[in-house]
Amino acid sequence: MLSKNQIKILRGLQRKKERKNSGLYIVEGKKIVQEILNSKDDWVELYATKSWLEQYPEYILLENVYEITDKDLTQVSSFKTPNDVMLLLKQKAKTDFLDVHSSDLVLALDGIKDPGNMGTIIRLADWFGVGHILCTSDSVDQYNPKVIQSAMGSLSRVNIHYGDLVQMLMQLKSHKIYACDLNGDSIYDASFNEKAILIMGSESHGISIEVLKMVDFTVTIPSVSNTGIDSLNVASATAISLSLFCSK
Amino acid sequence: MLSKNQIKILRGLQRKKERKNSGLYIVEGKKIVQEILNSKDDWVELYATKSWLEQYPEYILLENVYEITDKDLTQVSSFKTPNDVMLLLKQKAKTDFLDVHSSDLVLALDGIKDPGNMGTIIRLADWFGVGHILCTSDSVDQYNPKVIQSAMGSLSRVNIHYGDLVQMLMQLKSHKIYACDLNGDSIYDASFNEKAILIMGSESHGISIEVLKMVDFTVTIPSVSNTGIDSLNVASATAISLSLFCSK
Repeated sequence: MLSKNQIKILRGLQRKKERKNSGLYIVEGKKIVQEILNSKDDWVELYATKSWLEQYPEYILLENVYEITDKDLTQVSSFKTPNDVMLLLKQKAKTDFLDVHSSDLVLALDGIKDPGNMGTIIRLADWFGVGHILCTSDSVDQYNPKVIQSAMGSLSRVNIHYGDLVQMLMQLKSHKIYACDLNGDSIYDASFNEKAILIMGSESHGISIEVLKMVDFTVTIPSVSNTGIDSLNVASATAISLSLFCSK
Repeated sequence: MLSKNQIKILRGLQRKKERKNSGLYIVEGKKIVQEILNSKDDWVELYATKSWLEQYPEYILLENVYEITDKDLTQVSSFKTPNDVMLLLKQKAKTDFLDVHSSDLVLALDGIKDPGNMGTIIRLADWFGVGHILCTSDSVDQYNPKVIQSAMGSLSRVNIHYGDLVQMLMQLKSHKIYACDLNGDSIYDASFNEKAILIMGSESHGISIEVLKMVDFTVTIPSVSNTGIDSLNVASATAISLSLFCSK
């Protein structure tokens, strides 16, 4: 059984501020919890329903494992349909920004708000060997439960740097800066043979004017459609752009 | 105010069975509701909070518009944080399967379960001019609230055919069949100059054996990573594949 205080702490971790103050975060759901348990990464506490613990009895006697009722799980979960098990983890240590300089391809995100998009983009970066993502401070937090759900294990393998994007771009003088938006040259005709930063803009506002001023090339994914669709989802656009960057 | 019966009906439409029986579905959230209202498409009923109706007073006096309390909205919504307004709509009429024959590029989905992925794929199809998607019967329903949330207006512009995928593929004799999975030739080296069907498999099981037997070419999106990531999200893989199909 969980104490009221435990429930309060776990619920609190749905908020970015509490995650920042505590340096902790939560991972929910059978599949991703299993992936972390298999990877032997450290975890702080595990909360699971009776049925999950019956399936994995090797965890029952561990000191930092707690049985949780369905009712309590619904209270502390950030999902409408919670999924049997959650892990409490320590946030990873910050990476030195100097490491970004040596990367050939860097991804930069300007104001991404949707956690599902952010998680999918982190996973794409992992797939295409992009080790560093730069994010404006107003972008969604990497430890948001829905980001984690989409990013899966990639969260621990990709380094995310939050801060003033213009300042970060200014430091990376040996990279060419590409922006992907709706008003550039076709991305299929572009060549990317240098060290490059690819900037993707937010779902509703695109790339901010301050950031656009720093861009060397603007590229666009042209639509083949005549139905009037006006934009692609930003995670889909990132998938297509990274695929083209990495195959040329 | 909503009657208990209205609440019951709206809640019921969260289930596929009730949607099928009634031929109705629900669209939730300010942005997509606004898109439908602007498009002048028909709708059956509108449910909105007081604050939404104050912002759009032209709807207040319409006979099929109902004010809904936050409490009732939470009860009928499929989202943990409901968003001020919902529309009740009639499902569109089924398209003749014969129309698929004349399409150059057709997308086929084998057992896609995640509604966010399905919605994103519908939007991608719309962007790349793919007018028809074939889906196995066990794929998530196009009128699932979370599919709609991701597909946005593309749902009304892309035709989705549910049924026995093998049977459907057998009818399309003039198309070459491509499967995208983890064990094929690099998609970057493939050529697609014929009428084609592109098959994407489910998140957890890939493409079924029966369907794979019908495939002419298997293509793979190679990873550039050495971190051990084992798969891409299916919507991301569809984005990359459609982009390559349509640019060659």
